[in-house]
Amino acid sequence: MRLKLFTLVLTIMGFNARAQNEDSLKIRAIADEILQHSKAYENLRVLTKQVGARLSGSPQTYKAEAWGQKALQQSGADRVIEQPCLVPHWVRGGKDEAWIVTPGKKNQPLDILALGNSMGSGPKGIQAPVILVNSFEELEQKKEAVKGKIVFYNYKFNDTYVKTFEAYRDAVGYRGAGPSQAAKYGAVGVLIRSMSHAADNNPHTGSTRYNDSFPKIPAAAMGVQDADRLAAMLEKESLSVFLKTSGKMLPDTVAHNIIGEITGSEFPDQIITFGGHLDSWDPAEGAHDDGSGCVQSIEVLRVLKAIGYKPKRTIRAVLFANEENGTRGGLKYAEEARNKKEKHIFALESDEGGFTPRGFGVTMSAELLNKLRSWLPLLTPYGISEINNGGGGSDIGPLNRELGTPLAGLQPDSQRYFDIHHARSDVFESVNKRELELGAVSIAALIYLVDKYGL
Amino acid sequence: MRLKLFTLVLTIMGFNARAQNEDSLKIRAIADEILQHSKAYENLRVLTKQVGARLSGSPQTYKAEAWGQKALQQSGADRVIEQPCLVPHWVRGGKDEAWIVTPGKKNQPLDILALGNSMGSGPKGIQAPVILVNSFEELEQKKEAVKGKIVFYNYKFNDTYVKTFEAYRDAVGYRGAGPSQAAKYGAVGVLIRSMSHAADNNPHTGSTRYNDSFPKIPAAAMGVQDADRLAAMLEKESLSVFLKTSGKMLPDTVAHNIIGEITGSEFPDQIITFGGHLDSWDPAEGAHDDGSGCVQSIEVLRVLKAIGYKPKRTIRAVLFANEENGTRGGLKYAEEARNKKEKHIFALESDEGGFTPRGFGVTMSAELLNKLRSWLPLLTPYGISEINNGGGGSDIGPLNRELGTPLAGLQPDSQRYFDIHHARSDVFESVNKRELELGAVSIAALIYLVDKYGL
Repeated sequence: MRLKLFTLVLTIMGFNARAQNEDSLKIRAIADEILQHSKAYENLRVLTKQVGARLSGSPQTYKAEAWGQKALQQSGADRVIEQPCLVPHWVRGGKDEAWIVTPGKKNQPLDILALGNSMGSGPKGIQAPVILVNSFEELEQKKEAVKGKIVFYNYKFNDTYVKTFEAYRDAVGYRGAGPSQAAKYGAVGVLIRSMSHAADNNPHTGSTRYNDSFPKIPAAAMGVQDADRLAAMLEKESLSVFLKTSGKMLPDTVAHNIIGEITGSEFPDQIITFGGHLDSWDPAEGAHDDGSGCVQSIEVLRVLKAIGYKPKRTIRAVLFANEENGTRGGLKYAEEARNKKEKHIFALESDEGGFTPRGFGVTMSAELLNKLRSWLPLLTPYGISEINNGGGGSDIGPLNRELGTPLAGLQPDSQRYFDIHHARSDVFESVNKRELELGAVSIAALIYLVDKYGL
Repeated sequence: MRLKLFTLVLTIMGFNARAQNEDSLKIRAIADEILQHSKAYENLRVLTKQVGARLSGSPQTYKAEAWGQKALQQSGADRVIEQPCLVPHWVRGGKDEAWIVTPGKKNQPLDILALGNSMGSGPKGIQAPVILVNSFEELEQKKEAVKGKIVFYNYKFNDTYVKTFEAYRDAVGYRGAGPSQAAKYGAVGVLIRSMSHAADNNPHTGSTRYNDSFPKIPAAAMGVQDADRLAAMLEKESLSVFLKTSGKMLPDTVAHNIIGEITGSEFPDQIITFGGHLDSWDPAEGAHDDGSGCVQSIEVLRVLKAIGYKPKRTIRAVLFANEENGTRGGLKYAEEARNKKEKHIFALESDEGGFTPRGFGVTMSAELLNKLRSWLPLLTPYGISEINNGGGGSDIGPLNRELGTPLAGLQPDSQRYFDIHHARSDVFESVNKRELELGAVSIAALIYLVDKYGL
C-alpha cells in the first residue's frame, strides 16, 4: 500500500518540468493546427447538409457510413474498417399529428413528434380524454382514472441543475418508461412534455422502451409551449386530444461501425479508442448529437498526422452505429474486442455536443484519475478545467463493462444542449466553429498524453 | 512580513467549514432564485427590442435611461440616482456605402460600417485606388505609395488565441490608430478588415481615434468575406473603391449614469459597485455588448432582496453611460467618488457578453487575489473555475486609477463574442437565457461574499 502511494506521488510529482514543457509545446502545436486548419467544421457541414438525418436503417445510414469512410481515409488513417452489426429499424412512417379537440371551435394543433421505437396509433388515429400527471407518483394516485385516456406527463425540466445533464437524467424516465407505465393502467396513448429548457416550441423526441407485459400504446413528445398551453386549458376544463402517429418497428437490419486506425509504432497491441456516433434522430440534422463527436474524432487522426506525431499505441477513431435507439454499435465493438482478446487501454467519447469544452468525466480507478488530473495544467489553457469522477459515453460503456477499459467523456458546456437535443433545431447552424474545434483540441491533447505515457 | 503571511494563511485556512457551508447554502439560494425566477432575460428583451440601439446622444439614450431607472426601482433599490455627464455625440449621418469600381462591369458592393467617431467622406463620396497592407510594418514599407489612396488594412484576427480577447487586443490598433496613421502618409480614406472570427460578412464597427496632427479621413470596417474578396481581386489587378460615409461629431451632450443603491446596514460608507454600460453601437441591439451586463447587475439587486439578504455595505448597480466612444460615464463616476471622498472597496464589471461564465479577471493586490481564490470552491459549482490576475472593465478602470479600488471583471466563455461584437448580429436572439443567468449568479455570489467578508 505504501509503495503504491509512493508510486502515485512519484507519478504526479515526477511528471517533470522538461516533459511538461515538451508536452506543452506539442499540445500548442495541436491547437494551432486545429484552430487554423481544422477540417472538422467543413466535415460537419457535409454530414449535416448533404447526408442529413440518419436514423439507423434509413437510406442515409449508408450514405453517412460512406461519408465516414472517406473522411477517415482523408484524415490519414492507415486503414478504415467496416464492422457490421444488426440494428433496430424503426420508422416514423408518416407525419405525426395531434390537436386539442375543442367542439364547436377550430381544433388547436399540437406540434408533436412520436417517440423513437413507439408504435403508431393506426391510420385513423385515436381520440381520448386527457389526464395530466406531473409525476409517476401522481400517476399512481390517479391510476383508477387512467383507463381509456391519454396520459399527459407534464414533468418539468428542473432549471436549478447547473449541469443540464442532471436535469435530463432526472426527467428522462418519463420518456423511457412513461408509455408502458400508463398502459399498465389502461391508458390508450401518452403525451410527454419535452426534456428541454428551450423557450421555443420544438418537440424533442428520443427512445422509449416498452415493457412487453403491457399494450404498446402510441406516445409522442410536445414542445414546452404546447405543454404549458395544454396544462393551462386542462386547469379550466376537461379536454380530449386527437393523436395520430405511424411508427413501426421493421426487422433488424445491418449497419456498421466505421473505424479509422493508425497502428502503434511501439505497442501496436494496445488500443486507444475515441469516437462519437454516426446515427441521429430522423427529424434533426444531428449536428451536435452527434455529428460533432464524429468530426472531432476524425480531426484527432488528422491533427496527429499533420503535426508529425507517430502514435506509440494503436489509435482508433470510431464512428459508432445506432447509439440512439439500441447502442448496438457499441455493444458489437466491445463484443469483437472481447472475442479477439484485444487490449483496450483507454476509450473516450464525445457525445454531449460540439460546445466549448469544460472538462472530462471519467470512469476509472482513483489512481488513473489522479494521473489524468496531473495533466490538467497542460489542458486548462484550452478550456479543460476539471476532470470529474463519473462519465464516459453510451457507445464505450460496453468496453468498460466487458473489459474494464478506463473511460472518459468530453464534457462541453451544457447550457445550450437541451435547447436542441433530439429536436429539429439540432442543425449545423447551431454549432460554433471554434467551440467545435476547441473540443477537438481537448480530445487530441488527452489522446496524445495517454498514447505517450500509457495508462 | 511573516505576520502578513501568517494572516494570509489564516485568511485562507481559517475560512472555516461552518462559514463555508452557510455561504454555500446562501449561494445555492441565489442560484435557485435566478435560474427559476430571473428577470434578466425579460429585461434584456425589453431593452433590446423596445429601446434598441442606443449610441450616446441618440434619442434611445434617454429611453434606455428611463428603462434602467424603472428596472432598478423594480429590482428593489432603496434609491435610484441619475448622475449626469457630458458625452461625445457622434452620428452616423446616413447610410454608409462602398463598392469596388469595376469599369465596364456592374460595381461590386461592399458591406461597410463607418467607424465610430469618424468623419464623413462628404456627400459625393470619394473614389480612389486601393492599397492593401497587412500590417503597420507594411504600411511603413509602402508609405511612398499611399498618397491619394484608400488604405485597406487587412490584418487578420489571430485564430490561435484561445481567449479571443487576446486576438482583439492584438488587432484593435488598426481600428483605433489606423486612419490617422494612413492620413499621415496622405491617404484619403481607410477600410479595415473587421475584428472577428465570424464566417459571415457583417462589418464590425467601433471607435477610432484621430490624431489631430493629420487630416481626419473617412474610415469604415468591412466583413471578413468582403475583405477576402477584395484582397483576392487586388492580387490580380489594381482597383479603385468608392466610399461614402456621413459621420459627424456634434457638440457634447448630457447623458447619465443610472445608479441603483441599497444602503449598507453595518458599513454604509463602504461602497461596492457592479455594473455594465447602457450605451451600444448604433447598428446593433447591444444585447451582449452590453445589455447583458446591465440586466445582470439589476438582477443582483433583485436576487439579494428576493432571498432576504441585507447587505452590510452599500451596494450599487451602475448602468454606465458612454462606454463605447468616450468612457465618460466611468470617468464621471470616479470623479464624483473622489470629490465626495467615497470609500469604494470593490468594483465589478460585466462587459464581455452574456455567455456562460468561466472566471473573473481581477486587478488587486496579491493578498486580495488570494482571498478571492479562497472562495473558488463556492463559485465553481456555478461555472467559475478561475480567478485570473488582470482584468476589470473600461467603466470601472477610473475607480482603480483614481482611488485604488480593487477591480474584477466577469470572464464568460469568449468563443462567440467576436462573432457579434459591434455588429448588426449582436441581437437578443444571440443570448442564451441560462448562460446570461449563470453570469448573474456568479456576480451575485461574488458580491455577496465581498459584502459579507469585506476586502
